[in-house]
Amino acid sequence: MKSSMHNPHLAPEKYGIMDGISECIVTTISSKGPNAAPMGIIKNSNGIKIRVFKGSKTYGNIMNFPFLAANVVYDPKIYTMTTFSNLERSQFDTIVYEDVEFPVLKDGISWMLFECNNLQKSSQSLVADLIPVKAKLSHIDAVRAPNRGFNSVLEACIHATRYQLTGSQKYLDLMQYHAEIIRKCGGKTEKEALDQLYRFMKTNK
Amino acid sequence: MKSSMHNPHLAPEKYGIMDGISECIVTTISSKGPNAAPMGIIKNSNGIKIRVFKGSKTYGNIMNFPFLAANVVYDPKIYTMTTFSNLERSQFDTIVYEDVEFPVLKDGISWMLFECNNLQKSSQSLVADLIPVKAKLSHIDAVRAPNRGFNSVLEACIHATRYQLTGSQKYLDLMQYHAEIIRKCGGKTEKEALDQLYRFMKTNK
Repeated sequence: MKSSMHNPHLAPEKYGIMDGISECIVTTISSKGPNAAPMGIIKNSNGIKIRVFKGSKTYGNIMNFPFLAANVVYDPKIYTMTTFSNLERSQFDTIVYEDVEFPVLKDGISWMLFECNNLQKSSQSLVADLIPVKAKLSHIDAVRAPNRGFNSVLEACIHATRYQLTGSQKYLDLMQYHAEIIRKCGGKTEKEALDQLYRFMKTNK
Repeated sequence: MKSSMHNPHLAPEKYGIMDGISECIVTTISSKGPNAAPMGIIKNSNGIKIRVFKGSKTYGNIMNFPFLAANVVYDPKIYTMTTFSNLERSQFDTIVYEDVEFPVLKDGISWMLFECNNLQKSSQSLVADLIPVKAKLSHIDAVRAPNRGFNSVLEACIHATRYQLTGSQKYLDLMQYHAEIIRKCGGKTEKEALDQLYRFMKTNK
């Protein structure tokens, strides 16, 4: 399986997984159905890894069936949705790998299916090596200029999660800072994502 | 010329110019040669605009020859370079529009050439309507997962400029905040861009 790391058809860069931490939507499967969650895919010269915190659905799903798909997504509302909730069944597509069905995002730009190897558990999280086994670039012409509003949706989602974990005012202030950038620089979808984020936070109080 | 707004071959979305503010590298020309500067291209349902501050090379160039190219770039070092300096001649390509040569970036993902119409000058800046006249998607398969390090390079460049204009500690603190994200989430190129940014700031003190 390791040899697929060197299969040029499965070069992560072709699917948007670059050096550093790629902010992807990770899809996994359990007997209850597909799950989607925003997560960082860590790539450096040693390979690709993920760190998943205990208690999350992704953690449980990987422990039961050690595969995940990293979906590259340009829709800010997918980030806000998956930060607080799962997606609708209709937002997933099903792919088949070695006769097993696996969920990926229907509206993603690309996806890479990884086998999770060498699972290392600590008290808080697990770290797994990710071995690419299948991939697809669904939208080859999806070019996007950087948008500070889009970027701030991701930041606001991260700070929203930290606020919900800690209750610290610091994270509400950072959310406010990014909300201003979203209002100034974002398009319609980024502004809708911000509204959605604040709605989710009220519901989850 | 206005009809090109409705020419589907020149739909801005095809070249990465989306609703909201697209952070592009704007290239312009003068008798001294090409210039590149990071700027926001503003798009909403009324059309596409740019706001350019007085005193910049871009301002002077547009006043003399009212065309600009908006280049979509995924290389963070192009943002740090153009924040403080011009690019090397070798980093520009020349395109021809109605028998006139115009500079675009050699390593960009896409470019759109705009005619600047309806120039409205205020004491501080000019605002122009941008009418697309020619465009090219150079790398159709350049997909990128969002990277918080890359995004923070753009933020650090903006705060570096503000710091140099105002001398306010607030902007150095924001740069430091983004530098930490670049070190944690960026790839090799983002980290090099950060080093370059701090070098430029020392030189420009």
